[in-house]
Amino acid sequence: MKTITLLTDFGLKDAYVGIMKGTVLSIFPDVRFVDITHEVDPQDVREGAFIVEEYYTYFEKGAIHVAVVDPTVGSDRKPIIVRRGGHFFIGPDNGLFTLLYDDATRVYAIENSRYMGKEIGKTFHGRDIFAPAAAYLASGVQLTKFGSMVKDPATLPGIYPVIKKNVLKGEVIRFDRFGNAITNINQTVIDDFIKQKAFTIQFQGMSFRKIQKSYYEGEIVPLISSSGYLEFGYFKGNLRQKLGLKKGDQISITIS
Amino acid sequence: MKTITLLTDFGLKDAYVGIMKGTVLSIFPDVRFVDITHEVDPQDVREGAFIVEEYYTYFEKGAIHVAVVDPTVGSDRKPIIVRRGGHFFIGPDNGLFTLLYDDATRVYAIENSRYMGKEIGKTFHGRDIFAPAAAYLASGVQLTKFGSMVKDPATLPGIYPVIKKNVLKGEVIRFDRFGNAITNINQTVIDDFIKQKAFTIQFQGMSFRKIQKSYYEGEIVPLISSSGYLEFGYFKGNLRQKLGLKKGDQISITIS
Amino acid sequence: MKTITLLTDFGLKDAYVGIMKGTVLSIFPDVRFVDITHEVDPQDVREGAFIVEEYYTYFEKGAIHVAVVDPTVGSDRKPIIVRRGGHFFIGPDNGLFTLLYDDATRVYAIENSRYMGKEIGKTFHGRDIFAPAAAYLASGVQLTKFGSMVKDPATLPGIYPVIKKNVLKGEVIRFDRFGNAITNINQTVIDDFIKQKAFTIQFQGMSFRKIQKSYYEGEIVPLISSSGYLEFGYFKGNLRQKLGLKKGDQISITIS
Repeated sequence: MKTITLLTDFGLKDAYVGIMKGTVLSIFPDVRFVDITHEVDPQDVREGAFIVEEYYTYFEKGAIHVAVVDPTVGSDRKPIIVRRGGHFFIGPDNGLFTLLYDDATRVYAIENSRYMGKEIGKTFHGRDIFAPAAAYLASGVQLTKFGSMVKDPATLPGIYPVIKKNVLKGEVIRFDRFGNAITNINQTVIDDFIKQKAFTIQFQGMSFRKIQKSYYEGEIVPLISSSGYLEFGYFKGNLRQKLGLKKGDQISITIS
Repeated sequence: MKTITLLTDFGLKDAYVGIMKGTVLSIFPDVRFVDITHEVDPQDVREGAFIVEEYYTYFEKGAIHVAVVDPTVGSDRKPIIVRRGGHFFIGPDNGLFTLLYDDATRVYAIENSRYMGKEIGKTFHGRDIFAPAAAYLASGVQLTKFGSMVKDPATLPGIYPVIKKNVLKGEVIRFDRFGNAITNINQTVIDDFIKQKAFTIQFQGMSFRKIQKSYYEGEIVPLISSSGYLEFGYFKGNLRQKLGLKKGDQISITIS
Repeated sequence: MKTITLLTDFGLKDAYVGIMKGTVLSIFPDVRFVDITHEVDPQDVREGAFIVEEYYTYFEKGAIHVAVVDPTVGSDRKPIIVRRGGHFFIGPDNGLFTLLYDDATRVYAIENSRYMGKEIGKTFHGRDIFAPAAAYLASGVQLTKFGSMVKDPATLPGIYPVIKKNVLKGEVIRFDRFGNAITNINQTVIDDFIKQKAFTIQFQGMSFRKIQKSYYEGEIVPLISSSGYLEFGYFKGNLRQKLGLKKGDQISITIS
């Protein structure tokens, strides 16, 4: 039984996700679905990109990950299949897979109408293109049958933190349910940058000289989240609400 | 493995949906669940009726669709199984299946206590009646074993658009996650009505002379939604909030 | 196929639940997941405890119930497996399983690193400890292999109603989606207390002399909920909003 995961910004009120699953099952029923989230902020491709990077490695190789955050559905942006590290990703070529791209990643356009729905509308490619592609891929269709290789897939600008001299600057990308603020600065970047020197983290007028290991250790704390990214958490409540935080809020780390 | 879909207004905070699934599995485990939505507006049978019509055709024939929006649970409204086009629907006889009824539809009451839970309360027929019925139906029990045929199932009044001379009038039935307003006027009704004549759509003081094909083509646009119904969408944000829309807001289409 | 249910306060916006499922599937794929809820109020162990008690009996024996409401993750609270009535429960030893404990219940610590993830962080034991434990338990690992027996698991104080002479006092524990207020007083406690005598229920300045059988029978009504607990429901709308209710609001039942 192949695993097909689903990440979208469709929400859970409408039948859209159920319709995608029905479409898959009508083509190839021997699959198992795992919902990752359908609550990506509407049309926030950037938030989606970070979540996609976060979950896939926990699944078995061969898993198929359908991800649809697609504000320009109906335009000429391509539908694509991305292969990385034995995993497959299906979705729009709008930068949603930016964080997956390295030299070993392969990207194919979905062009062969044989592996699409019968009618292709302009509003719901999750149903008309991505779900059928997932079903056919699960059923054993070779990647190269879907379409030609894409050499230059779309990427999101400004998604990585920036280092200037002794200052590393990043920003808040998203919030988890508890109101913790997750940044675009991951542990590898931090380790490479600070190299065991003393450092100061500045965020919202606060200064921190240490990265904590759990929410339990203080009130407002910087820590490395379970996803490997620097986050700001607050043991007693919702940090986003407490400080009035928003996406894009700046963080800097300065080494002395 | 039989597919059992679930649509309810139970929300996702409580254990109700999980309890229904456990009840099914305890009777007949060889099934797969697909959640359609549990966020139908509380007790809005009308909204539920349109969603039921929307998703089921995407599933394979033989699928069992449990739908529970049931404000009069505990009264004498019947529990029923509806068969249409190779699909089965299980839920209350309160109009939730209005849009499925045509000459070929068959409706059976669930009367045989052998295919119900051991105790039947007055507050949770999803658990006590509908989930067991789905499990037994999936296990191969014949439709006629559940109970007698229902000749005159309940239907919702005023659910269809109305045509008077050269004006077609409909209304907003529901909103999707993005705030788009979905009406009760479907493409077939529009095509039969306008027959390629010039037309004007009026909605909230705005006039439109064209139905667009995607959200991408303008700001506030009328378009045919992925469900086949006329909707009003807004590329840049949430139309419901922008215009303060509510269910029941009127739309008219006038041909000249 | 073993059933693994999941109850958390992780919400549905983040990838946490999907990551737990991927972790299970990577260890042992022959399972079926049933989500109970991921919308337990953040860090409300008490609310979680009542929901855990509510759903598990509807599942088949042998089912594995993972429950994670874990405000002190990263402290020294133990991860545990609880066995009761042929069911298995996996989660933190913080009182979440209080209502399951009786003489026949057995509790084991999860101590054997062989049945954990490779790295154990301090923020996400759902992924690092509880999901792997569920996978290994589903795969057939004996309960005693996980760790030593826990003689004195944590319990929540003040969770049961209190009887003083002719007055039984309880409180509101949680609200369902419809805004109905569910208390900590269950039918058995009520029956044992009132023994068919006349009684008066007092709640929010209102008095009731009868417990109704369905929402349909009046406006604001006390009734026994589908979970077996006394609740206050309101047929026409949301009682929580109407009366400004909150968790902890007191209820008393007086017999004459």
